[in-house]
Amino acid sequence: MNRLELFGLLNKDMNFIEDELYRSIDSREELINDTSLHLLKAGGKRLRPVFVLLGGKFGEYDLHKLKRVAVPLELIHSASLVHDDVIDDAETRRGQPTVKSKWDNRIAMYTGDYIYARALSIVAELPNPAIHHVLSKALVQMSIGEMEQIRDFFNVDQSVRNYLLRIRRKTALLIAVSCELGAMAADAPGHISSLLYSFGYNVGMAFQIHDDILDLLGTEKQLGKPPGSDMRQGNITLPVIYALQQPELRAALLAEINLIREYEDKHSPRAAIELIKKSDGIAKAENLADRYIKKALDSLDLLPEVKTKKTLRDIAHFVTRRSY
Amino acid sequence: MNRLELFGLLNKDMNFIEDELYRSIDSREELINDTSLHLLKAGGKRLRPVFVLLGGKFGEYDLHKLKRVAVPLELIHSASLVHDDVIDDAETRRGQPTVKSKWDNRIAMYTGDYIYARALSIVAELPNPAIHHVLSKALVQMSIGEMEQIRDFFNVDQSVRNYLLRIRRKTALLIAVSCELGAMAADAPGHISSLLYSFGYNVGMAFQIHDDILDLLGTEKQLGKPPGSDMRQGNITLPVIYALQQPELRAALLAEINLIREYEDKHSPRAAIELIKKSDGIAKAENLADRYIKKALDSLDLLPEVKTKKTLRDIAHFVTRRSY
Repeated sequence: MNRLELFGLLNKDMNFIEDELYRSIDSREELINDTSLHLLKAGGKRLRPVFVLLGGKFGEYDLHKLKRVAVPLELIHSASLVHDDVIDDAETRRGQPTVKSKWDNRIAMYTGDYIYARALSIVAELPNPAIHHVLSKALVQMSIGEMEQIRDFFNVDQSVRNYLLRIRRKTALLIAVSCELGAMAADAPGHISSLLYSFGYNVGMAFQIHDDILDLLGTEKQLGKPPGSDMRQGNITLPVIYALQQPELRAALLAEINLIREYEDKHSPRAAIELIKKSDGIAKAENLADRYIKKALDSLDLLPEVKTKKTLRDIAHFVTRRSY
Repeated sequence: MNRLELFGLLNKDMNFIEDELYRSIDSREELINDTSLHLLKAGGKRLRPVFVLLGGKFGEYDLHKLKRVAVPLELIHSASLVHDDVIDDAETRRGQPTVKSKWDNRIAMYTGDYIYARALSIVAELPNPAIHHVLSKALVQMSIGEMEQIRDFFNVDQSVRNYLLRIRRKTALLIAVSCELGAMAADAPGHISSLLYSFGYNVGMAFQIHDDILDLLGTEKQLGKPPGSDMRQGNITLPVIYALQQPELRAALLAEINLIREYEDKHSPRAAIELIKKSDGIAKAENLADRYIKKALDSLDLLPEVKTKKTLRDIAHFVTRRSY
């Protein structure tokens, strides 16, 4: 459990959301309870609910309305993770065995389907068509992003733009929508929810870039999985793309990636990681993440002065400094 | 392509829905277009859209409103099939290779996720919270049903009640909801949409029981897959449960089911099918299906006299007589 510890003012409300999360997945089917509970218990930063609540502070903050957005967004995120673990053939996530490894792929697939459906049935209780609209459009984009990820596996010739489009759909959109829907559920004016969308989008982009850097620099203990897992799965991330652009490193790195592709778990990604560390790939990726954070802070500056702004600023800074 | 040919009066509207179905899955991501199109092109009876339109005849029939329910319901059905094929490890469906066999399991999973998301984004355009509510609750139940199916694989001691609960969630609910939502989208009075729900539920139960009988009695050509596929996958259906209740057949049938379980494709289900045919399992299952049809017709009798009633009656009779 490594829930974000930044938000003194939200702790009580986040505990309430945490309880609601567990309540939301309760069914009389034992297997589905076990798998869903296992998934939620594995934890996570609960970043999406936090953003919903913070977004809600820019309007009429009503926790009982906001939970109908906060809980589904975390559920959708969890469902996408359990499906990702099938795709990535991941044995552990956040240091815990994945549903697909503790049970199997088929059970993981239906656990995801169940949690998606639960999420939708909670949102459906909100009589606000605009919220349904925003959320369902985001879901379409997310699923396209998931397919793009498969398409791009081990594609060593992809562009930076390609990578950015992919993480936009994979990560940034749902974080953007979390901020936006929090404001919408609190009936904040349209220009405010738009600014929050923009804040969340840019924070989300930085978050994913930093995540991809951590996968190369972190320890197994910090990551809850072995470093270099992305490369093992064929997920070519930003530092790798930048490193491949350096002529003096390209051939050696390509050879390592090919060995990883060919021998899978039998070839360690250690040598590839060393090559990437030698390159300017990490620095360039960090630089791009910082630019996204700067853009996020620019959006924040345009928002009205509420106490919450400081917390949002803190999160923006935290995103590219965290080691987990 | 074996679209239901019963509905002279709906043919034009069903062609429109068919076009809308294809339009609905269009994306700029090539792989996702290919898999989704493959899935829709494999056809099907389009039973759910037909029920939506017929339900709509009991209110203010507006095709442009009804399509926002008809298209999503067929999409949800298709998405559940593509996920089922992963679970069942099915190579063909309706005589066509499945997405999981033409591509792979991971691509099939995300194709399903994409089509679900598309379905939701179309429903989200309807500003009617009650419709969202009904649909999302059905989705939750369906996904629980899918998990129950895994739980019950090769469970030879399951009761008839257990089987009925499972097919209720797996099949009957979505057909019930198709009839109901057609009426709701046409602003029909509440008692009418409830009667249509009851009609659809009972037709759906009969439909699935008959489907499970066909899987034992049909030819490979009629079924688009080898007979006995259910047993091969471990799906213990109603005629099997009834046959297992006959003491003089039980031991032999259990032995055959064990061989199928152990040797998978290497042991033909032919001998098991012969044992079931010798039992009264088929007749008892047909009898139960007929009782559901009778209940469906009872609900129909309580509905106002519109021209559509005859078509609904025809479909109810067709459901337990079809050979595909």
